[in-house]
Amino acid sequence: MYLENIYSPADVKKLSFGELNELSCEIRTFLLQKLSKHGGHFGPNFGMVEATIALHYVFDSPNDKIVFDVSHQSYVHKMLTGRKDAFIYPNRYDEVSGYSEPQESEHDFFVIGHTSTSVSLASGLAKGRDLNGENENIIAVIGDGSLSGGEAFEALDYVAELGTNMIIIINDNQMSIAENHGGLYRNLQELRESNGKCECNFFRAMGLDYMYVAEGNNVETLVKAFSAVKDISHPIVVHINTLKGKGYKPAEKDKEAYHWRAPFNTETGKLKEDYGDVEDYADITARYLLEKMQEDRRIVGITSGTPTVMGFTLDRRQKAGKQFVDVGIAEEHAVALASGIAANGGKPVYGVYSTFIQRAYDQLSQDLCINNNPAVLLIFWGSLSSMNDVTHLCFFDIPLISNIPNMVYLAPTCKEEYLAMLEWSIRQNEHPVAIRVPAMEVIFCNEPVDTDYSELNRYKVVHRGSKVAVVALGSFFGLGQSVISLLKEKTGIDATLINPRYITGVDNELMDRLKTDHQLVITLEDGVLDGGFGEKIARHYAATDMKVLNYGASKKFVDRYDVQELLRANRLTDEQIVEDIRKIGNFAQIVQ
Amino acid sequence: MYLENIYSPADVKKLSFGELNELSCEIRTFLLQKLSKHGGHFGPNFGMVEATIALHYVFDSPNDKIVFDVSHQSYVHKMLTGRKDAFIYPNRYDEVSGYSEPQESEHDFFVIGHTSTSVSLASGLAKGRDLNGENENIIAVIGDGSLSGGEAFEALDYVAELGTNMIIIINDNQMSIAENHGGLYRNLQELRESNGKCECNFFRAMGLDYMYVAEGNNVETLVKAFSAVKDISHPIVVHINTLKGKGYKPAEKDKEAYHWRAPFNTETGKLKEDYGDVEDYADITARYLLEKMQEDRRIVGITSGTPTVMGFTLDRRQKAGKQFVDVGIAEEHAVALASGIAANGGKPVYGVYSTFIQRAYDQLSQDLCINNNPAVLLIFWGSLSSMNDVTHLCFFDIPLISNIPNMVYLAPTCKEEYLAMLEWSIRQNEHPVAIRVPAMEVIFCNEPVDTDYSELNRYKVVHRGSKVAVVALGSFFGLGQSVISLLKEKTGIDATLINPRYITGVDNELMDRLKTDHQLVITLEDGVLDGGFGEKIARHYAATDMKVLNYGASKKFVDRYDVQELLRANRLTDEQIVEDIRKIGNFAQIVQ
Repeated sequence: MYLENIYSPADVKKLSFGELNELSCEIRTFLLQKLSKHGGHFGPNFGMVEATIALHYVFDSPNDKIVFDVSHQSYVHKMLTGRKDAFIYPNRYDEVSGYSEPQESEHDFFVIGHTSTSVSLASGLAKGRDLNGENENIIAVIGDGSLSGGEAFEALDYVAELGTNMIIIINDNQMSIAENHGGLYRNLQELRESNGKCECNFFRAMGLDYMYVAEGNNVETLVKAFSAVKDISHPIVVHINTLKGKGYKPAEKDKEAYHWRAPFNTETGKLKEDYGDVEDYADITARYLLEKMQEDRRIVGITSGTPTVMGFTLDRRQKAGKQFVDVGIAEEHAVALASGIAANGGKPVYGVYSTFIQRAYDQLSQDLCINNNPAVLLIFWGSLSSMNDVTHLCFFDIPLISNIPNMVYLAPTCKEEYLAMLEWSIRQNEHPVAIRVPAMEVIFCNEPVDTDYSELNRYKVVHRGSKVAVVALGSFFGLGQSVISLLKEKTGIDATLINPRYITGVDNELMDRLKTDHQLVITLEDGVLDGGFGEKIARHYAATDMKVLNYGASKKFVDRYDVQELLRANRLTDEQIVEDIRKIGNFAQIVQ
Repeated sequence: MYLENIYSPADVKKLSFGELNELSCEIRTFLLQKLSKHGGHFGPNFGMVEATIALHYVFDSPNDKIVFDVSHQSYVHKMLTGRKDAFIYPNRYDEVSGYSEPQESEHDFFVIGHTSTSVSLASGLAKGRDLNGENENIIAVIGDGSLSGGEAFEALDYVAELGTNMIIIINDNQMSIAENHGGLYRNLQELRESNGKCECNFFRAMGLDYMYVAEGNNVETLVKAFSAVKDISHPIVVHINTLKGKGYKPAEKDKEAYHWRAPFNTETGKLKEDYGDVEDYADITARYLLEKMQEDRRIVGITSGTPTVMGFTLDRRQKAGKQFVDVGIAEEHAVALASGIAANGGKPVYGVYSTFIQRAYDQLSQDLCINNNPAVLLIFWGSLSSMNDVTHLCFFDIPLISNIPNMVYLAPTCKEEYLAMLEWSIRQNEHPVAIRVPAMEVIFCNEPVDTDYSELNRYKVVHRGSKVAVVALGSFFGLGQSVISLLKEKTGIDATLINPRYITGVDNELMDRLKTDHQLVITLEDGVLDGGFGEKIARHYAATDMKVLNYGASKKFVDRYDVQELLRANRLTDEQIVEDIRKIGNFAQIVQ
């Protein structure tokens, strides 16, 4: 056993090439064990075993600094930098995050989780080094899939001018999360096929020096390559050809399914939990869109590298043909493309995770909303109960999207309402429409829902009571229902329940009407409070006698949080809310 | 006179090459007349005269669709598409905007003003065309400077896969707003020097077909080139070599000064208004930073293609040397670079226009704020009294920046406070700090200001009164002063005046203390209300008896507005505010 004795990169350097190969096997064994039990990024780490070993063999981390793009492939790096126990012992699996994390180790320099940032961040380290007159190596490791994001390009363009040491490892495993898309990937293929020798070379065209390593899963070859560029006096790209998922056949074969993998049986490769029969919004969306696409050739689905967020598995992508576009990990382009398609008579529907739409604020504002083109955006997983890594928080989309003029941001509360809003948003030609797809489990309201949403900012009074009104947005509608039940039970107050539906505007008329027989309005939103929905209601009533309580998350980055704890910490349970109501200044007056 | 008889592109097509050359001369004459009197984008339009004529000679706009990047070079296009009078007759100069505008003409397809969006938007038009089974030509015109933005790259990458007709004209005038920066520009140079023949070709590496036109200011040559690609069945790049400012010697010589030019004397080239002696925040910033740079080699200024926003004219850039970085028009990289520099011991100060910082939301959140690195951002021109083109509005930065956790966003009210905050922000190592540089004229407060801002969210009570408190943020502090004077005069109320200083948080203690002897709090912010500063104060008091009135701009895109009108429409004058105060429900009670 070598891994057990690796406490830092110094211990890697002591091993012979034969031993390093043994180490690779051990690492894969432990990775397979952990990931099959715990879930995680599978393919990216299996492909990077040898390269990571070689990096730590050649360079002197943490003086030399390695920055991993997305950092979902940094598990091996963690194993070699003092964090092996979190991969060896099941009871310690949760001691490390799935991404790089400076609080865990001096070998990590940034918390990273979004794509295409590594070259930029690393070039900052290099510039900082130069300003301080130091001379360590700065290394960025970026996958081929991550190259499609604009930030990576901007950084490559800059690095050529930096002029000093910087080593950019392109980990080319010929895959993004799904298959790659974009003209650039033809050049990567040419480079691989010519053993790096073809004249037309994207990286050289960007003004960068270049080296190709065909055997990117061979430690010895990699050690030679990295040694050759160590302490280089100018920026260079080292393009290594690796196999995603290498060492576990099912992962080598079905690279998309093993990019991130939930716990599975290592013998069969099958997922431990069978989600087959559980309906989800991804599936609902894809089925709906595929059907609509057949009726209407103008409809086109768009993804920025994550087709399955909207249910477009490979077979469905093939079925949709030219009516489904994967632009690569390129959210900016996805939004502008959608605007352009809508401007020329198409019906674009762009599906994207809440955490990634924030990569395209300017495109939402400039390319889409100023032009007021009727593109449809489906924002998935926007909720406190969604991804809980600090880099993948999905609760900032409301302030991001809803404060842009012209945008209509809708919050359906159930499946029926979602589909009705989706149908309307595709049908209408007046507005850019974003829909905050309900999170996370599918709820049926079994009630008639409106089919037309063109009269903007009309909230729906679901139950007309008095004294207290609960405005419960989107996926917090259920919480609103609980609150009014509990409030009735505890205080006898028959509260009004409102489904606001529109995140982007206040129903001024309704809000004003409430003043006649309500003294308190509660807002509930499944996201951050600051800049969000509830504050607009607070502003609406600010100069009146109406009291308002806003519920949502406080503005704070949280990491690997427990959802229930976070909800409680923000007083987002029905009991806490009812308790708060009973404590407000004029409560005695309200119950009278 | 040819121009006077050009009512649509059809009239261009009737002319001989000799006549087209005459037309070029006329166009330049009228451009010079208008721009010397009116101001505007000079160099970009002078360089594009022949190319625009050739485009309209060859293609059939508006069926064929031309999308101009930034669209600051679309004046000639406007002259040839029915809008000549706005360039010929001084009393009609203001009839057209400085950017493309579908409301003006069917020949414009988008409102465009930010950089690097044209290829993306045009590819959307192409995709829409394909979905509808049409076959018009789609043309994007993008300058070399605009290629540095990530969105352009993302789009080029996509276009190669589009597979159908699309023509991308690269207008290579060897300049951005200032000089170009980035490795890509070496390749453009190689391409020019090899007459487009060098093997390593950025555009071919992106999977695109390519054609080079050395004489980009020759109508006949351009007509031939465009004719050759008209109706092409796949995407192609047509790289044309033009001279920025062509036809007016001073503009050919000093390209940076003539990118955008205020009214000037055509004989001497001198600006009509001499701003020489008026101090501005750009100048103050550059002088301060240059001095600090000499003391501390870790300090580095960063710009994303607009160095003069922070006062770094060419001589100052040269003086700063390696301590000033222009990353090209690449805001995403600029923010991430700053974070990286701060993470490795440097002291980055990134200066950027309010309207452009929105191009980097994800980088602010992920690369900078999650990592909590002490980079400094200077947000210039954030105000309602700033740029008034709809594409360049500078009043959305508060919701954009201030709702990101960990960020400290400061709003100085005067020069002294600005410099104190700048000094502190560079000195401290705890937070990413953004400063909303006061807009627009320099105000001296002649009062002592704090030198340390590390105790966050402590507002400053400038005058302690009672009953009414005015919380006047940043450049609206002066408005706050007027309001309390006028209120005193009209009602006798001696109101409290507060300079909040911190946009990113509420001074809960102070706000709570006000409850003892205040009944009304007014918030004033020089920006959009939605998601902004005032709403947080409204939320703070929402469940109490304190009344709040929030002042700022309503969420709306406005174009070429009159500042005073906009202020009045939003009730942002002292008189209107005092009037509103007197109208609120409990006013009688307040004055008692």
